[in-house]
Amino acid sequence: MDAAERIPKDARHRVERTKARARYDRDTVHSILDAGMLAHVAFCVGGQPFAIPMLYARDGDTILLHGSVASRLMGQLGEGTAACVSVTHLDGLVLARSHFDHSMNYRSVVAFGRATLLADADEKGAALARFVDALIPGRAAESRPPDRNELAATHVLRFVIEDASAKIRSGGVKDNPADLALPHWAGVVPMRIAYDAPMPDAGLPSGASLPDSLNALMQAQGDTR
Amino acid sequence: MDAAERIPKDARHRVERTKARARYDRDTVHSILDAGMLAHVAFCVGGQPFAIPMLYARDGDTILLHGSVASRLMGQLGEGTAACVSVTHLDGLVLARSHFDHSMNYRSVVAFGRATLLADADEKGAALARFVDALIPGRAAESRPPDRNELAATHVLRFVIEDASAKIRSGGVKDNPADLALPHWAGVVPMRIAYDAPMPDAGLPSGASLPDSLNALMQAQGDTR
Repeated sequence: MDAAERIPKDARHRVERTKARARYDRDTVHSILDAGMLAHVAFCVGGQPFAIPMLYARDGDTILLHGSVASRLMGQLGEGTAACVSVTHLDGLVLARSHFDHSMNYRSVVAFGRATLLADADEKGAALARFVDALIPGRAAESRPPDRNELAATHVLRFVIEDASAKIRSGGVKDNPADLALPHWAGVVPMRIAYDAPMPDAGLPSGASLPDSLNALMQAQGDTR
Repeated sequence: MDAAERIPKDARHRVERTKARARYDRDTVHSILDAGMLAHVAFCVGGQPFAIPMLYARDGDTILLHGSVASRLMGQLGEGTAACVSVTHLDGLVLARSHFDHSMNYRSVVAFGRATLLADADEKGAALARFVDALIPGRAAESRPPDRNELAATHVLRFVIEDASAKIRSGGVKDNPADLALPHWAGVVPMRIAYDAPMPDAGLPSGASLPDSLNALMQAQGDTR
């Protein structure tokens, strides 16, 4: 792997356990980030740690976060304090013959860096469109962009990834060979996020058809079943 | 609400934003914790925040966490450093007519406290059974409990919740009235975790039937479709 393709790493995040599950290349980190919309953002205030759930969208080697200007935590984060952004997808239950070998299939990224508040209105507007598209690709084009008041009411943070690590577990059960004769069922139960039938707002004209973004989401899900 | 039913709260976690979404009662906090298996655990080491994904199981007003004895982070956490455990469930995409009013339906808990390592083997064994049952209720009785070596290889942490807050958003789109005339689709797309067909381990006897825990999981899911 080309060093230029690797997100910098140092001792603070190097995955010391189960190295076989650790991946550091940029494409892996990006693909895990791009598959999600919810991050848990950690930072310390006077020695007190916080882990706050936040919606996010990746933009290159940065992660955009947002919240209200009234939020004390957004203000703390935007002062450039050290932060850690963690994103995890659960892919399956790994049911072993022993309690000890039970596990999960998952993909996770833990990223370290710092966040700064965006000041430029155009840049904030572009970020809001990215958040909307992180919920469903294509949705931003199907809804109204923010006006000046809405932009003023929104804090957008750009978290710059200084280094990041990815961990992935996939595949089957890894039971202790001595357990294979036990009469217990073992295997993997795949997990995913499923979307149920959209519930239109009562204010829509009757018979309003679903937008393209939503049709694509429901179809993509149908393809995996 | 009886004060005795309330998990203590103080300024460090009080939900200052969107108070309508904040809940502090113990039953709400417990029910959100009981609905999940993945937490993000934050702590600070020398001013550096970490947010680490970990499997968990609730036990009264404590949260059990576990990891390998070889994990540096487990050791740090087990020294009783201040920690924050955050659990979030995504329940739906809220698609508004404006970018600004896009949102998610969710349930989240942010809990503050400290963790200590369990030393007693029986207590550790009981905790491992709880982790297994957190994946699927009833599964611990269908698999082999840990032996002495496995217990020695496992760190179990008991995180004592000193205070906690829950946030819930549910329901429909809350568009700006001025946007209701826009020609954009609006509504909610419910989300949930779905389990696909179990993949039995290759070492099972052919025709091995699914265990009760898994039958119940798949049936419960069928009921919600």
